Amino acid sequence: MKPPYYAVIFTSVRTNVEQGYAEMSNLMVDMAKQQEGFLGVESARNEIGITVSYWKDLESIKNWKNNVDHLQAQRMGKQKWYESYKVRIALVEREYDFEV
Amino acid sequence: MKPPYYAVIFTSVRTNVEQGYAEMSNLMVDMAKQQEGFLGVESARNEIGITVSYWKDLESIKNWKNNVDHLQAQRMGKQKWYESYKVRIALVEREYDFEV
Repeated sequence: MKPPYYAVIFTSVRTNVEQGYAEMSNLMVDMAKQQEGFLGVESARNEIGITVSYWKDLESIKNWKNNVDHLQAQRMGKQKWYESYKVRIALVEREYDFEV
Repeated sequence: MKPPYYAVIFTSVRTNVEQGYAEMSNLMVDMAKQQEGFLGVESARNEIGITVSYWKDLESIKNWKNNVDHLQAQRMGKQKWYESYKVRIALVEREYDFEV
């Protein structure tokens, strides 16, 4: 990944409904990885969840957002698994890292 | 928060050194909140940690990055607490949310 590229920052608060969540979550990550323009994904959760996915451009984000299976997952997410969530679409301009 | 504004996406892998980490982490969040241009922060950790802080502009990000106490915390982070980390600076162009 070399900037510029896009990050989709998905922050969420879950309901206490576990049924089907892990399976759907894993399936969506697997499907996202197969999308044109997908660059990577990172996820962490304790009180809240933060998932950041990285994409080549806005077009690839839009295509994934409107993917039929993903739309169905989004509907189920609102009905069952999420109390609230927020999606931010952001252009990564710069990055730097550290490794021991 | 109304776009456009900036997100700093900080992803990290911790060492197993706990000593002083929570205190410093809380202190840095408290100090960040007092900075000009600070808009908010969200954090989650399990295998990896993701902290996203939100800022009015690049100037406020730069000021916080170069804050003397924060520089000291960054040095200690590299020496003790982080195995690796990555920082991405991204312009939030759009956002939408969902609430039950």
